[in-house]
Amino acid sequence: MRSREEALALDQQDPLKEFRDLFVLPPGLIYFDGNSLGALPKRTAEQVAHVVNHEWGQELIRAWNSAGWFTLPQRLGGMIAPLIGAKPSEVVVTDSTSVNLYKVLHVAMSIALENDPNRRVVLTERSNFPTDIYIAEGLCRERGFELRLVDASALREALDASVAVLVLTHVNYRTGAMFPLSDISRAAKAAGALMIWDLAHSAGAVPIDLSAADADFAVGCGYKYLNGGPGAPAFVWVHARHVDRAWQPLNGWIGHRAPFEFTPDYQPQVGINRYLAGTPPIISMAALACGLELFERLQARGGITALRQKSVALTTAFIEQVEARCPGFGLQLISPREPELRGSQVCFSHPTHSYAIMQALIARGVIGDYRKGDANTPDILRFGFAPLYNGFVEVWDAVEQLNQVLCSSEWKQPQFQQRALVT
Amino acid sequence: MRSREEALALDQQDPLKEFRDLFVLPPGLIYFDGNSLGALPKRTAEQVAHVVNHEWGQELIRAWNSAGWFTLPQRLGGMIAPLIGAKPSEVVVTDSTSVNLYKVLHVAMSIALENDPNRRVVLTERSNFPTDIYIAEGLCRERGFELRLVDASALREALDASVAVLVLTHVNYRTGAMFPLSDISRAAKAAGALMIWDLAHSAGAVPIDLSAADADFAVGCGYKYLNGGPGAPAFVWVHARHVDRAWQPLNGWIGHRAPFEFTPDYQPQVGINRYLAGTPPIISMAALACGLELFERLQARGGITALRQKSVALTTAFIEQVEARCPGFGLQLISPREPELRGSQVCFSHPTHSYAIMQALIARGVIGDYRKGDANTPDILRFGFAPLYNGFVEVWDAVEQLNQVLCSSEWKQPQFQQRALVT
Repeated sequence: MRSREEALALDQQDPLKEFRDLFVLPPGLIYFDGNSLGALPKRTAEQVAHVVNHEWGQELIRAWNSAGWFTLPQRLGGMIAPLIGAKPSEVVVTDSTSVNLYKVLHVAMSIALENDPNRRVVLTERSNFPTDIYIAEGLCRERGFELRLVDASALREALDASVAVLVLTHVNYRTGAMFPLSDISRAAKAAGALMIWDLAHSAGAVPIDLSAADADFAVGCGYKYLNGGPGAPAFVWVHARHVDRAWQPLNGWIGHRAPFEFTPDYQPQVGINRYLAGTPPIISMAALACGLELFERLQARGGITALRQKSVALTTAFIEQVEARCPGFGLQLISPREPELRGSQVCFSHPTHSYAIMQALIARGVIGDYRKGDANTPDILRFGFAPLYNGFVEVWDAVEQLNQVLCSSEWKQPQFQQRALVT
Repeated sequence: MRSREEALALDQQDPLKEFRDLFVLPPGLIYFDGNSLGALPKRTAEQVAHVVNHEWGQELIRAWNSAGWFTLPQRLGGMIAPLIGAKPSEVVVTDSTSVNLYKVLHVAMSIALENDPNRRVVLTERSNFPTDIYIAEGLCRERGFELRLVDASALREALDASVAVLVLTHVNYRTGAMFPLSDISRAAKAAGALMIWDLAHSAGAVPIDLSAADADFAVGCGYKYLNGGPGAPAFVWVHARHVDRAWQPLNGWIGHRAPFEFTPDYQPQVGINRYLAGTPPIISMAALACGLELFERLQARGGITALRQKSVALTTAFIEQVEARCPGFGLQLISPREPELRGSQVCFSHPTHSYAIMQALIARGVIGDYRKGDANTPDILRFGFAPLYNGFVEVWDAVEQLNQVLCSSEWKQPQFQQRALVT
């Protein structure tokens, strides 16, 4: 990609180009934050209005039957299943990623204890998404396990005979580095540990095959690449060999075998339905359905494989362009250079002012985000690429804006130093 | 109330009559199921559309700051606080009632153990709402407690020195019987037990003063009398003396003291904010805000006291009318006859066919619901009265329809025997 014209040509040849028109995208904005909050599908507003005005407003309580509200967790789960290599009957949409991780880690700990009471370690990556670490930290503290945090590079070595459960996020939220899901799952299995995947930063962006990897548990979120709207409910998958082995801890009434019998003793549903807990937030669920419908439509256009091809092309082009057109400012690529090792995001660091540079870029209409560094990674500028609606001209233009921010030093203006509540 | 004209006069004199116009209510329908799913406030559709189209669609990720998404749990909690006798800073909206009950019961058990390791009983009413019993059952099983289920009448006697926590739903979902919240809270305290209230069937319908009662924990739901929409997120309150004493088990990233520092160790927020877990479902939260705004408006019209007065008048009128105008069919009042002992619902049983009678009544446009009986109560016809939008003519007309269903025996038709997925 050596010119804007070439970028335009790539967009015109894009086999997924029809999808951009299915999203609301504010004119003049380049949105590279779909890895944090996916854009609004055009159909969503109409569908949400229908749920509010017709289903809730007119059908009222009857909509639990007439509009199929009661089976939404299963229907949405069935739509997510093909994106993660699961059977439709193995996935439900419910609660948040954090809450679902609590459920599966709790169950995994119980099963691990049953298998071998001497395995008392939950292993994860030190720079895993914090909520995953916090949930694991709480459960370890409560149940007498040790939480072992290691660098990603030291994971295999750390998978010793004390490890009960390995919990990883497939694509690192900070670096974009992607674990080889199958290899790691197999390594965990070989080491006698149970494998939990958090797919929040990968579902809907990269091919995932949990069944082929023979993983044990997975959770993920609906509001990033699945375009389900802010705080959209999350999903949970449990391998058939475990699903009926234990009660999940949040055994609410919707997970009961006969919820409308209102019996005083808990009898979990058979299969993944027992991972449901309380009444689901229907309006947010309905919005998620619209995001997922686009992935059904994607099937006819090459599916997730085509999506991944475009994602790799976009991230590769972005890396090349930034390095070629923004030299001399100290920007350093944090994401893996090898496409097969990264998800659908690219991160760069600036030696001193990643935050202010991102704010200045946002002020110019290029929306990425900033993430504070940790022991392993510096502060970063993060750019997410949603192949359903991002394109090559956007890559070209965003790099132009980034170049201007850097050349002009406009990021030094005081308003770009100010921290917002949510960064 | 001796005639439809008198009912009409009562509606005309109703100091809350302006509120009915603030709801969408399908013409020809009498909706007596607001205790299960509150009706749609007129403003909600517009506000939800704004959140979807403008905040999500145009602001995208920036809306977490610009539209105040990040502080919604606190703002909604602050709106609920005056309805339950709490300070605005003591309540947050998050997750479902089931999940919140898990959090507070888990914490209550930990505190109780710290106070006295010999107290190992969680006490509740045998006919408490099932999800409360299931959540308690799971936690008791996991943490070596005993779940003690007793009849409501035997509660005080069962409050012995072994009881760690008493968990009750303020208004029984099946009978409409209301516990004296202050008395019971005091009895629990006197017996050395912690008190958890589930306010799902009372918040927004009856006056509640958790602070005056000196209760310990409370949870409740947003989709019944608070009119927040199907599966609206729930709320949680913790007394100041406990709130910072323990981690709640679902310690996700939003409950962290500095969520955007992304540190690998969990440090809970101070106060009720630590009861947050994962990313909240914003669209459903926004709908709940509209329901709660009506309660702010209610302040100028006598507040919850005026609401309760109307509720008592409606339920009393309904009982009188059914007993006066539908005699000889075996209908029996299940709810307490004394207004001070019941919430905002009235239940009757039919000796054999409560389900079919309710279906026939629904077919005539009077929507109540059916609840299967248990050891203590028979199958019931349940009628909920939402004083913000229900009126006296509706009571009159509903009883007329009920009378016709009974006189005509139309409930014997086969279609009314068929059970739906959700009853």
